[in-house]
Amino acid sequence: MYRTNNCGELNENNVWDTVMLSWWVSNRRDHGGIIFIDLRDRYGITQVVFDPEENKDVWDLADKVRSEYVIKIQGKVRMRPDSQFNEKLNTGKIEILVDDIETISKSKTPPFEISDYTKAWEQVRYKHRYLDLRRDTVKNNVKFRHKFLQFSRNWFADRDFLEVTTPIFTVSSPEWSRDYIVPSRIHKGEFYALPQAPQQYKQLLMVGGIDKYFQIAPCFRDEDTRADRHACEFYQLDCEMSFVETKDVMEVVENYMFDIVDKLWQGKHIKDWEIKKMTYKESIDKYGTDKPDLRFGLEFVDVTEVFSDSEFSIFKSVYDNGGAIKTIKTEWIDMSRKDIDELTKVAQEAWAKGLAYIIYEKEGPKSPILKFFSDEEIEQLNQLHSPNPWDIIFFSADEYQTAVEVLGQVRLALRDKYDLADSDELAMSWIVDFPMYEKDPDTGKIDFEHNPFSMPKEGLESFDKENPLDILGKQYDLAINGEELLSWSIRNHDPEILYKAFDIVWMSKQQVRDKFGAMLRAFEYGAPPHGGFAIGIDRFMMLLCDEPNVREIYAFPKSGNAQDVMMWAPSKIDDEQLEELNIELKDTDEDIEV
Amino acid sequence: MYRTNNCGELNENNVWDTVMLSWWVSNRRDHGGIIFIDLRDRYGITQVVFDPEENKDVWDLADKVRSEYVIKIQGKVRMRPDSQFNEKLNTGKIEILVDDIETISKSKTPPFEISDYTKAWEQVRYKHRYLDLRRDTVKNNVKFRHKFLQFSRNWFADRDFLEVTTPIFTVSSPEWSRDYIVPSRIHKGEFYALPQAPQQYKQLLMVGGIDKYFQIAPCFRDEDTRADRHACEFYQLDCEMSFVETKDVMEVVENYMFDIVDKLWQGKHIKDWEIKKMTYKESIDKYGTDKPDLRFGLEFVDVTEVFSDSEFSIFKSVYDNGGAIKTIKTEWIDMSRKDIDELTKVAQEAWAKGLAYIIYEKEGPKSPILKFFSDEEIEQLNQLHSPNPWDIIFFSADEYQTAVEVLGQVRLALRDKYDLADSDELAMSWIVDFPMYEKDPDTGKIDFEHNPFSMPKEGLESFDKENPLDILGKQYDLAINGEELLSWSIRNHDPEILYKAFDIVWMSKQQVRDKFGAMLRAFEYGAPPHGGFAIGIDRFMMLLCDEPNVREIYAFPKSGNAQDVMMWAPSKIDDEQLEELNIELKDTDEDIEV
Repeated sequence: MYRTNNCGELNENNVWDTVMLSWWVSNRRDHGGIIFIDLRDRYGITQVVFDPEENKDVWDLADKVRSEYVIKIQGKVRMRPDSQFNEKLNTGKIEILVDDIETISKSKTPPFEISDYTKAWEQVRYKHRYLDLRRDTVKNNVKFRHKFLQFSRNWFADRDFLEVTTPIFTVSSPEWSRDYIVPSRIHKGEFYALPQAPQQYKQLLMVGGIDKYFQIAPCFRDEDTRADRHACEFYQLDCEMSFVETKDVMEVVENYMFDIVDKLWQGKHIKDWEIKKMTYKESIDKYGTDKPDLRFGLEFVDVTEVFSDSEFSIFKSVYDNGGAIKTIKTEWIDMSRKDIDELTKVAQEAWAKGLAYIIYEKEGPKSPILKFFSDEEIEQLNQLHSPNPWDIIFFSADEYQTAVEVLGQVRLALRDKYDLADSDELAMSWIVDFPMYEKDPDTGKIDFEHNPFSMPKEGLESFDKENPLDILGKQYDLAINGEELLSWSIRNHDPEILYKAFDIVWMSKQQVRDKFGAMLRAFEYGAPPHGGFAIGIDRFMMLLCDEPNVREIYAFPKSGNAQDVMMWAPSKIDDEQLEELNIELKDTDEDIEV
Repeated sequence: MYRTNNCGELNENNVWDTVMLSWWVSNRRDHGGIIFIDLRDRYGITQVVFDPEENKDVWDLADKVRSEYVIKIQGKVRMRPDSQFNEKLNTGKIEILVDDIETISKSKTPPFEISDYTKAWEQVRYKHRYLDLRRDTVKNNVKFRHKFLQFSRNWFADRDFLEVTTPIFTVSSPEWSRDYIVPSRIHKGEFYALPQAPQQYKQLLMVGGIDKYFQIAPCFRDEDTRADRHACEFYQLDCEMSFVETKDVMEVVENYMFDIVDKLWQGKHIKDWEIKKMTYKESIDKYGTDKPDLRFGLEFVDVTEVFSDSEFSIFKSVYDNGGAIKTIKTEWIDMSRKDIDELTKVAQEAWAKGLAYIIYEKEGPKSPILKFFSDEEIEQLNQLHSPNPWDIIFFSADEYQTAVEVLGQVRLALRDKYDLADSDELAMSWIVDFPMYEKDPDTGKIDFEHNPFSMPKEGLESFDKENPLDILGKQYDLAINGEELLSWSIRNHDPEILYKAFDIVWMSKQQVRDKFGAMLRAFEYGAPPHGGFAIGIDRFMMLLCDEPNVREIYAFPKSGNAQDVMMWAPSKIDDEQLEELNIELKDTDEDIEV
């Protein structure tokens, strides 16, 4: 037997109990000949005491233990002196006077300090992740992930969704990113692909009658590494439903979000329980992005028309070229010249030429460009902004897309610089009416804007429109605090409409059948209308945990360059293994030697 | 809106309700001009009725629908005539008189009958799995898997186990089988391996202080296909605990087994709630296998000593060569010459030379070999077997391993032939005291019998034994109805003992460090004693569902030769993709053309 209790549960009710505890020596202090050890495990910390006057032999043994040794102690629980109470710990009022001690495992000196204040580099921590996991922040993320997984699965299971495990060995799903592939030994020259998402399988489940499906599914995309993306594998809470319309799916998402925030997101609150719906166009127009942060104001004002006949040649030429002039008005923020220079830099990094502004001082507006404005223009600006003293208006004038994007960046920079968003607040919005297609600005090629399997908003009639860029899709995003949390759509389950949709991006029926054969065949045998969503749970957990680094959401993360530095993956493999798989490396040192 | 109810819930309490249902036309019958359609969904079947006298237009539309069309109907619930009650269905007392019908999706004629009586080949069913899923047996397996997953996870979560997701992209774990590998694009010439099991990660979690871990983990082994194994990927309920001794882990497994059988295995019962513990040696000795089926008797009797001085040269030479002579006694089974010939064939397939027997008739024992036995030998056999009339004794005499294996096969053949095991019964046993090592009979090479990471039974002192084959491990199997359901061990967490254990199989410290570096390094920083298990849940579900084919446990199974015949995986991939991964095929048609 190793323990009667864990290190997080003993308290004043246990005084006089004889207990046995096992775990790590977290901290050791000597006070007037008495040894105090903090014993640490997953559940907490308990102080154990070795008094040479009570038991010299045991004290001698305790004198030999070092940090991170695993020890087993037996002793009696007693109250600490009042002056030594630690109110931060459950166990902070008691300690254990030890009768017996045994060292179970020794430890070398750890390569970094096992505490939340460690300054160790990520690579060092990841190489010894088993030590890193002993730190509170890492351990708490592991615990949170556990709670998140259980809560989410039970939530969907309680609502009659069936969890279905879809295959990990499948075919290429070329619609998103690069596939990871696995050579087949049995079928030489052929490869499995790991799923980028279970998109086709979940739609096939709908055709199979599993009318409510969910899964926390591993997904695999061979993308270049990025700070908010985990390399190799990531997880998505995947869901699909039959016989649903837009509002049905939104309701499921909203209820899940509300419940999970309520149950798991302690100390945070929802800004608005009536989730705002905004068209894609409106969101771009007002916030310069399709994932607006609605925790604060600073909506754009369109002032393009003000300058239809302006003497100010820069604005006038933007007007003449069909561009846009947008403003943001800050209130009561005192900015120095240096502050404004910083914002200008943000604008320039987003490809603006500059960042014009008017400061409303007590004496009236002041600005280097004011001299170019007519009185009427100034009057119109006043009407649009109702400025008070200390307000500032920033201008973004450019080709439409650039103008709004620049101002969107300025808006976020203002948020961060002046703490405009409450970090304990959660502001959600539905972005609706996404265009089905987008045009590549360089090549002019038309491609799907979102998911190619979305139903166009007006079904078959959508294709009567002259300009395919005007076709809207039944696809929706949930934005939360400036992040896209999930994307979903009502699917296109009608082969006729599907072929039409792909025709716009110049894919023939045959090509569509080659790429998505199983799904198209399936749709010929009585397909129910269906729709669904996927939530990138790692990013969601980042938000829920206030964790800035997505890698820390994993117990065993890959490092920034897609390596497991603890296990040392990826790595070279034996020639025989390659031989058996019928593949060989193209350019290797061996080749060069030959 | 598509439905107010599903097809499995309306009953006599809903009479007069106006309802809307959507789903498939499962069956259509015409009776005296009235059309009856069985509407089918995941939840059940509801009969809907089209009466031309009530509504001719709707009847006309109904006349056009065919099997597997998706239709939406609206109508009023009414009682069926008593004579048409179907007691097998929840909805069997009512039907819906339809006011309105809409065809939502048409269906071609399915390639096989959507019913449990379908005779379609596996390949055809799997190619159209989305249709196969509409059949009750397949759908019920999907539902069962869902229930199994939720129940199991909640069971462990309720007991303070933390679910931790371990990496899918990792390094080779060469101790079991072939790895599946994934070429890295970023690290050219290097490969990730998919985990055969999360063994090392879960042990590292223990070193990290996650003292109770579980996960339903995908595992990947590139093995040749077998009927009771799913190709490519399979799932295991993986669990590990710190500071445990043998009985602690056994208790967790037993309680989980009892609860899951109680909650999910309706109609089945546990034979003995006190799970029998049997040493490996005893199990082999009595049942010829380490996974005995204890639902019935037929234990072996050892009669080797009886023939120490026999005139019967076959038995005498077995005795002289140190072999074994074992018997099974059947009671009250009437066997013809042909039946005995069949059993002899079973024995011969297990490499026996023959299968001697004595039949105890009313008049006394009868057997072709009786004439070789002395009176004393017959008397001793009588004492060992206390035969009654109609009993039969079968003999297996050979080198020990062959003798027990042959008789083990005969025992199972008797079970199957004479229905000796209750298929609703569940008989479990713990097999303990496994040898740590085994000797390859051909090469004489010594290797690990089970998991190399198991703790030898007497720790470091185990290696004082002269013959390493005498070393026992703290490793255990749970056998259930003749299957090995799980295997587990108390781990070897002491680097010194680990090096010793590997030394026996001729692996140097350096080789051990090269192969299991992360784990060995980890054990140097205060490792707690720990142990754990893994249950192959697919095979477990086969048992729970009485499903003879493991593939049917998956919603989207691979076919027997490791192909997904619906999606057509594996498949060829583009040259550019291979190029980017820095690999090429060794022997392909393209090469030959060049």
